[in-house]
Amino acid sequence: LRTGIPEVIYGASKTVEQIITIARAMLKRASPVLVTRVDPQKAAKILCSCPELEYHEPAGLLCANKADVRMQKTRGKALVVCAGTSDIRVAEEARLTLELFGHPVGSLYDIGVAGLHRLFYRQQLLHEASVIIVVAGMEGALPSVVAGLARAPVIAVPTSVGYGASLGGIAALLGMLNSCAPGVAVVNIDNGFGAACMAHAINCDYSDDAPQ
Amino acid sequence: LRTGIPEVIYGASKTVEQIITIARAMLKRASPVLVTRVDPQKAAKILCSCPELEYHEPAGLLCANKADVRMQKTRGKALVVCAGTSDIRVAEEARLTLELFGHPVGSLYDIGVAGLHRLFYRQQLLHEASVIIVVAGMEGALPSVVAGLARAPVIAVPTSVGYGASLGGIAALLGMLNSCAPGVAVVNIDNGFGAACMAHAINCDYSDDAPQ
Amino acid sequence: LRTGIPEVIYGASKTVEQIITIARAMLKRASPVLVTRVDPQKAAKILCSCPELEYHEPAGLLCANKADVRMQKTRGKALVVCAGTSDIRVAEEARLTLELFGHPVGSLYDIGVAGLHRLFYRQQLLHEASVIIVVAGMEGALPSVVAGLARAPVIAVPTSVGYGASLGGIAALLGMLNSCAPGVAVVNIDNGFGAACMAHAINCDYSDDAPQ
Amino acid sequence: LRTGIPEVIYGASKTVEQIITIARAMLKRASPVLVTRVDPQKAAKILCSCPELEYHEPAGLLCANKADVRMQKTRGKALVVCAGTSDIRVAEEARLTLELFGHPVGSLYDIGVAGLHRLFYRQQLLHEASVIIVVAGMEGALPSVVAGLARAPVIAVPTSVGYGASLGGIAALLGMLNSCAPGVAVVNIDNGFGAACMAHAINCDYSDDAPQ
Amino acid sequence: LRTGIPEVIYGASKTVEQIITIARAMLKRASPVLVTRVDPQKAAKILCSCPELEYHEPAGLLCANKADVRMQKTRGKALVVCAGTSDIRVAEEARLTLELFGHPVGSLYDIGVAGLHRLFYRQQLLHEASVIIVVAGMEGALPSVVAGLARAPVIAVPTSVGYGASLGGIAALLGMLNSCAPGVAVVNIDNGFGAACMAHAINCDYSDDAPQ
Amino acid sequence: LRTGIPEVIYGASKTVEQIITIARAMLKRASPVLVTRVDPQKAAKILCSCPELEYHEPAGLLCANKADVRMQKTRGKALVVCAGTSDIRVAEEARLTLELFGHPVGSLYDIGVAGLHRLFYRQQLLHEASVIIVVAGMEGALPSVVAGLARAPVIAVPTSVGYGASLGGIAALLGMLNSCAPGVAVVNIDNGFGAACMAHAINCDYSDDAPQ
Amino acid sequence: LRTGIPEVIYGASKTVEQIITIARAMLKRASPVLVTRVDPQKAAKILCSCPELEYHEPAGLLCANKADVRMQKTRGKALVVCAGTSDIRVAEEARLTLELFGHPVGSLYDIGVAGLHRLFYRQQLLHEASVIIVVAGMEGALPSVVAGLARAPVIAVPTSVGYGASLGGIAALLGMLNSCAPGVAVVNIDNGFGAACMAHAINCDYSDDAPQ
Amino acid sequence: LRTGIPEVIYGASKTVEQIITIARAMLKRASPVLVTRVDPQKAAKILCSCPELEYHEPAGLLCANKADVRMQKTRGKALVVCAGTSDIRVAEEARLTLELFGHPVGSLYDIGVAGLHRLFYRQQLLHEASVIIVVAGMEGALPSVVAGLARAPVIAVPTSVGYGASLGGIAALLGMLNSCAPGVAVVNIDNGFGAACMAHAINCDYSDDAPQ
Ligand SMILES: Nc1ncnc2c1ncn2[C@@H]1O[C@H](COP(=O)(O)O)[C@@H](O)[C@H]1O
Ligand SMILES: Nc1ncnc2c1ncn2[C@@H]1O[C@H](COP(=O)(O)O)[C@@H](O)[C@H]1O
Ligand SMILES: Nc1ncnc2c1ncn2[C@@H]1O[C@H](COP(=O)(O)O)[C@@H](O)[C@H]1O
Ligand SMILES: Nc1ncnc2c1ncn2[C@@H]1O[C@H](COP(=O)(O)O)[C@@H](O)[C@H]1O
Ligand SMILES: [Mg+2]
Ligand SMILES: [Mg+2]
Ligand SMILES: [Mg+2]
Ligand SMILES: [Mg+2]
Ligand SMILES: [Mg+2]
Ligand SMILES: [Mg+2]
Ligand SMILES: [Mg+2]
Ligand SMILES: [Mg+2]
Repeated sequence: LRTGIPEVIYGASKTVEQIITIARAMLKRASPVLVTRVDPQKAAKILCSCPELEYHEPAGLLCANKADVRMQKTRGKALVVCAGTSDIRVAEEARLTLELFGHPVGSLYDIGVAGLHRLFYRQQLLHEASVIIVVAGMEGALPSVVAGLARAPVIAVPTSVGYGASLGGIAALLGMLNSCAPGVAVVNIDNGFGAACMAHAINCDYSDDAPQ
Repeated sequence: LRTGIPEVIYGASKTVEQIITIARAMLKRASPVLVTRVDPQKAAKILCSCPELEYHEPAGLLCANKADVRMQKTRGKALVVCAGTSDIRVAEEARLTLELFGHPVGSLYDIGVAGLHRLFYRQQLLHEASVIIVVAGMEGALPSVVAGLARAPVIAVPTSVGYGASLGGIAALLGMLNSCAPGVAVVNIDNGFGAACMAHAINCDYSDDAPQ
Repeated sequence: LRTGIPEVIYGASKTVEQIITIARAMLKRASPVLVTRVDPQKAAKILCSCPELEYHEPAGLLCANKADVRMQKTRGKALVVCAGTSDIRVAEEARLTLELFGHPVGSLYDIGVAGLHRLFYRQQLLHEASVIIVVAGMEGALPSVVAGLARAPVIAVPTSVGYGASLGGIAALLGMLNSCAPGVAVVNIDNGFGAACMAHAINCDYSDDAPQ
Repeated sequence: LRTGIPEVIYGASKTVEQIITIARAMLKRASPVLVTRVDPQKAAKILCSCPELEYHEPAGLLCANKADVRMQKTRGKALVVCAGTSDIRVAEEARLTLELFGHPVGSLYDIGVAGLHRLFYRQQLLHEASVIIVVAGMEGALPSVVAGLARAPVIAVPTSVGYGASLGGIAALLGMLNSCAPGVAVVNIDNGFGAACMAHAINCDYSDDAPQ
Repeated sequence: LRTGIPEVIYGASKTVEQIITIARAMLKRASPVLVTRVDPQKAAKILCSCPELEYHEPAGLLCANKADVRMQKTRGKALVVCAGTSDIRVAEEARLTLELFGHPVGSLYDIGVAGLHRLFYRQQLLHEASVIIVVAGMEGALPSVVAGLARAPVIAVPTSVGYGASLGGIAALLGMLNSCAPGVAVVNIDNGFGAACMAHAINCDYSDDAPQ
Repeated sequence: LRTGIPEVIYGASKTVEQIITIARAMLKRASPVLVTRVDPQKAAKILCSCPELEYHEPAGLLCANKADVRMQKTRGKALVVCAGTSDIRVAEEARLTLELFGHPVGSLYDIGVAGLHRLFYRQQLLHEASVIIVVAGMEGALPSVVAGLARAPVIAVPTSVGYGASLGGIAALLGMLNSCAPGVAVVNIDNGFGAACMAHAINCDYSDDAPQ
Repeated sequence: LRTGIPEVIYGASKTVEQIITIARAMLKRASPVLVTRVDPQKAAKILCSCPELEYHEPAGLLCANKADVRMQKTRGKALVVCAGTSDIRVAEEARLTLELFGHPVGSLYDIGVAGLHRLFYRQQLLHEASVIIVVAGMEGALPSVVAGLARAPVIAVPTSVGYGASLGGIAALLGMLNSCAPGVAVVNIDNGFGAACMAHAINCDYSDDAPQ
Repeated sequence: LRTGIPEVIYGASKTVEQIITIARAMLKRASPVLVTRVDPQKAAKILCSCPELEYHEPAGLLCANKADVRMQKTRGKALVVCAGTSDIRVAEEARLTLELFGHPVGSLYDIGVAGLHRLFYRQQLLHEASVIIVVAGMEGALPSVVAGLARAPVIAVPTSVGYGASLGGIAALLGMLNSCAPGVAVVNIDNGFGAACMAHAINCDYSDDAPQ
């Protein structure tokens, strides 16, 4: 595949019927399947028709044929960091997608800006990562703090968690873009999938490839 | 004075002539004078007519009769924290105003989110403060971090430093409002003076007063 | 506890199951429990499993072990002011949280900018308060008016009440930030809890403490 | 004239030459002339060519032939209220325009929300007015307060005074639109001229007219 | 009553129980009752307990004791204009409120900017009105066009009708504020009630009153 | 040329030197030259080096070799309509560009929404046009009105004229997008050039062409 | 009909009853009927009473008497292009409306910016079109790309597909307005109907008409 | 250095004196110097005092001691792509910064969305890059197109080029965040320096390092 990322179905704007049709075609070809943004109601209906699919509820993902994912030669282990319980669904979308793309991934889900001691005790994890995804809504400062501690590139994912002046994630997004910690870039609000794609592009090791 | 804050002149939207007229009247009454938002050009002209005034360039303040400020009974020492060189002018507006209102004030001006080690070494300063003003533009996360380390109330001042997605300080403002570190409240962008007023209201000790 | 505020659970983005799990753990430790942003449906289900919890409907709070709250030495009595019936839920979130944090709190819930006579008759209440929380949506001017009458610090809470140009509370928020009455700082839209945390930080009296 | 308002020239987007040409034509016809939004530099150049014009600097208006304004039969005396020195230029644009349109106009320029006592002592002025224009930037609450005290219709004019979260007058505008004091309507930011036009339409007394 | 407008209940943010309690108290005093923003479901429940109330579905209003409204001496007949079917609910809120306040009101509900011929044929109606309310969403230009044809003051009400770039009525609001037709002022989006209050303040004739 | 539009230089973000270099190269090839967004100062300097260029001040355009423009076979005469003096510079940018692209163009520059009589007397001009460009800032309703009277496609150009709630042309832009008069499409604020390109694409008559 | 477009009913803000009443009147006159923005639930109810109507679910359109549409003399074949499955409903609204207005229409629904090879293989389709409608949400760049390849005028329709920073279609709208590919104009977000009206105005061939 | 990026001075908000002081200190230590955002006037003054510095005008950078930059072991050659002349200054800021950080960098500066043929002919360059920075303002779609052709990670930099609906770069920023081409992340508007930092973090090859 040209851009190095397997075909993924965006489930949010598709009906149950549309998803079943596409998934069946892919299952028939025995290719790995990934459908994003599937809520539990939709998932239940789809699973009736496609029992080969596996549903990851917190991440809203439907997958199949993970075993057939071609193992990547990677640069190292990716790390997904998030702050509060509310950000976990986006962090899991990122983590599981990266796994499906063939990368080893760790996670660190209990880190808040107002309690940085815990982050300090875990610095080793940050240092060992080859790429870091930081997911944060009300704790919009987390990516800056992480980027200040690690040399790996940081992909920041703002989330739509919060209320009032959070403006559906815009506040976190703007904060992350203004960060003056170097080595941070940002993807769309709640876009755990997009962060995983960027991390995949960074973490693939093509050094043994014949020139493209 | 009813609300406990001496009269202050907002210089930004006044002409040199208007400021001179008002300042002279106050000087005649020998009352303390404070004019905010005076740029160096304006200040130079005003000082010709009112040599009793003293100009603080980085803060953009004109003052007189500081000696006549009635010393407050205060709850303790206030602290002004800021991150970068660009935020200093707002921090100084806050610090000098508080001083003129009769409070002891310390400052900590070299603190960035991407280099938190320095903040950790200075935690004692945070613990000793009775009220803390945190001024930050591109480092919008700083008030959350400080509030997570101190028990004193934190007044956050977003600044209009930065470009692009900083939106003239709106990004920092929104980030500070969304912070989930408890014990933070926010004033207008660049409003060092307003932060000082709030800090004054918090730090005054009226415990010996006869009931108002 | 480091920052002086007991652990509080943000209920809005948690499932009934998640809240029950966390609450049970805290109840077992016999520590005070406070869960914010719980709607009546959720509350009913949680109460079945955790009958020790008490639900305050207008405030959307679940509490337990209030008796075990360590009584604070405080600087005085806090006051919560709001304008219309629609703002009461946020005012109550603030008032009950402050109570749970161990502060004496009064309230004044019938005050509108278009009928200031009533406020004038109650000025004594404003003068006696050591800290004032003002909650307002369509009456965004209320904090300015209150701050003009009282010397205590004012924490303004914009609410998302209103329609059209209220922009979900943004209009009230901006108005409060622009206010030129000194001694006002602002928290996020609808954030009664955050206002209570700030009031707690202000109203605690640590004067007898050994240095931190 | 069809809509009852004499022709007025909007000076802001016209060159000195364009204004001179139009003004001369009107002066030749001996009709009343009003040019709005003329800054002092432009005015000085125009006055060289058209010495019949009179310049009102704080209002930015050029006028001529005021004596020829047909006196209106009016419903009473209009009142222009504003808060701070910075709002005066807009208040004066409104006041002088109304005068040129043939209405008696009073003014009250020292009224702030944080010092409402003064407003209370002047209530009689509010009660006697047949229409009230309230000009306010940082004191965006003023129109609500005035409308709560008077039965006359209130035209609110937000101004672009302020900084940061004032958003060039948008904060004041939104606040005025959300006001729940009845009997208020709003015109564009800084539009003293538009407020005068609305006040003129309200204050004209056509009761003796033959049907239009 | 001080500001000349009878007490009105804002129904949107009140429960059925709250509305019944307040309405009953007012009915007992036999004073006129007006509840705004009541949807049909809520209305049905309230009518069970308060059969004296009358429901106007398109306007969302509950009224009683209209007969007891003190007839105003008015300056003339008010006129409510709107463009499309979708704007009628707001226009009716304005029209019925004004009637309840004791004013004669006409209406013109089939006027669109893209078909101005109809408006031209009805110009007589515009000329006879003493005050005009123009309600418009997708046809945001209508108030300008009406104000260009009539000498009466025009109160513009933007509506939240439309999609996409209508931004929930903000587009219409901004357009109305920028209009350069003189004699227009604006109230909040969908605020038919507020427009009626302003029209009431304008249209009352106090010329026979003893001084206030 | 592939898309049918001759090469045009965007002058705004280029230095005098850059423009001279590019223009000279084109002049050497004797091809038609069009440089947009050139202010008078820049133009004066460029004309010193490239006297073959002709400057149209109100439109901000530099042109040469107009005689060599290949005459288009067109569908008819284009028409450019605008409201106030302030919109003329954008209208002229559109008109001159279209002329340079080889189209016959008429103009109608004295049309305001508040004085529609004039437009009605000129309807014949609208009916004869094959494509209409309507340029408007404070009169944002003009394109709707024109589109309601003509069957030709209308290209609306919002302008950044105005102040306050005009938001630099955003108000006009949103109004035009919401218009429910059919047959209108919109280009960027102040983009007279873009409107001319669209009009060119519409007005070219390729009916005699061999298939592309 | 004056502006050349048959009467169309905007279904979104009308009740089932209102639509039935209007549709019946039109059916009685045997004129072509088009109702836009009808969701499946509403459609089912309307079809019970008006079985003559035909429902196009993906487009949300109800039509009747298509056979009676007066065949236009057109300039050629229109083309509707869109990127993803999620944009198809808007593309279909445009395509079916244009057909009902009497134009031949082709479509190209599988084109994405990240896979431009497919577009390149279909360039012939673009070259043959007399007008092109491009519908895009997350692929906001598509209209620029198409306009760079074709000489026909391009009408861009942003859609509200996407999440987070898509801001309900505002991101796509802004991107399309800023495009520097010449020959593009834009209609409101999701306004497939409006795009069809513009395409109709462009594609009608009136060359044989007697002058209007 | 902890995060792998040498110290860099942000020149925009510093005075000439401040920059000279800091630069001298660094020059004394003989460490590499990089000052960003220095306009030509400032640069001229600084160069008088610090002739060791070298000024890159289009990029606004001052550098010294480039020879002392420790050569990185890198993963390959970085590539900077941009569309128009106006975006070059940001592209150069990125390119020169990356070079100073020790990376080999190529550039491709003549690529526009409306003329994709040129990009297609240069695909080889995209394929060979180990990380790609794409700088674009009015051509906001460029990063999507590039990411669709290359497997390397793409860092998108929106620029503030353009007018009207470009909103100072916000339009480009939002478009880039919504892109559905996988493998793109975004930095702040005009932040060529930030893009270089991210590219540096990605392109460093630490595979031979002892564990951190
Ligand atoms: N959660 C997601 N967020 C953003 N893009 C996605 C997501 N899931 C899939 N995609 C992208 O959406 C495109 C597929 O869209 P579709 O053809 O509508 O299924 C592919 O480019 C995917 O890479
Ligand atoms: N209503 C509330 N608004 C804002 N923050 C809250 C609220 N309730 C609890 N919190 C904070 O949310 C954090 C707990 O988040 P969580 O771990 O998701 O329960 C703590 O920092 C609380 O102080
Ligand atoms: N300061 C002002 N603000 C808004 N509109 C104005 C102002 N001054 C004049 N006008 C209006 O501008 C129009 C005159 O515009 P012009 O022909 O360009 O001078 C008339 O409709 C005036 O009512
Ligand atoms: N989907 C649509 N989007 C925008 N305008 C529409 C739509 N459908 C119909 N219209 C227009 O709405 C008007 C009819 O509105 P109404 O009288 O409320 O049915 C006509 O001008 C139609 O051209
Ligand atoms: Mg780092
Ligand atoms: Mg704290
Ligand atoms: Mg006070
Ligand atoms: Mg009143
Ligand atoms: Mg009028
Ligand atoms: Mg038309
Ligand atoms: Mg083209
Ligand atoms: Mg790629």
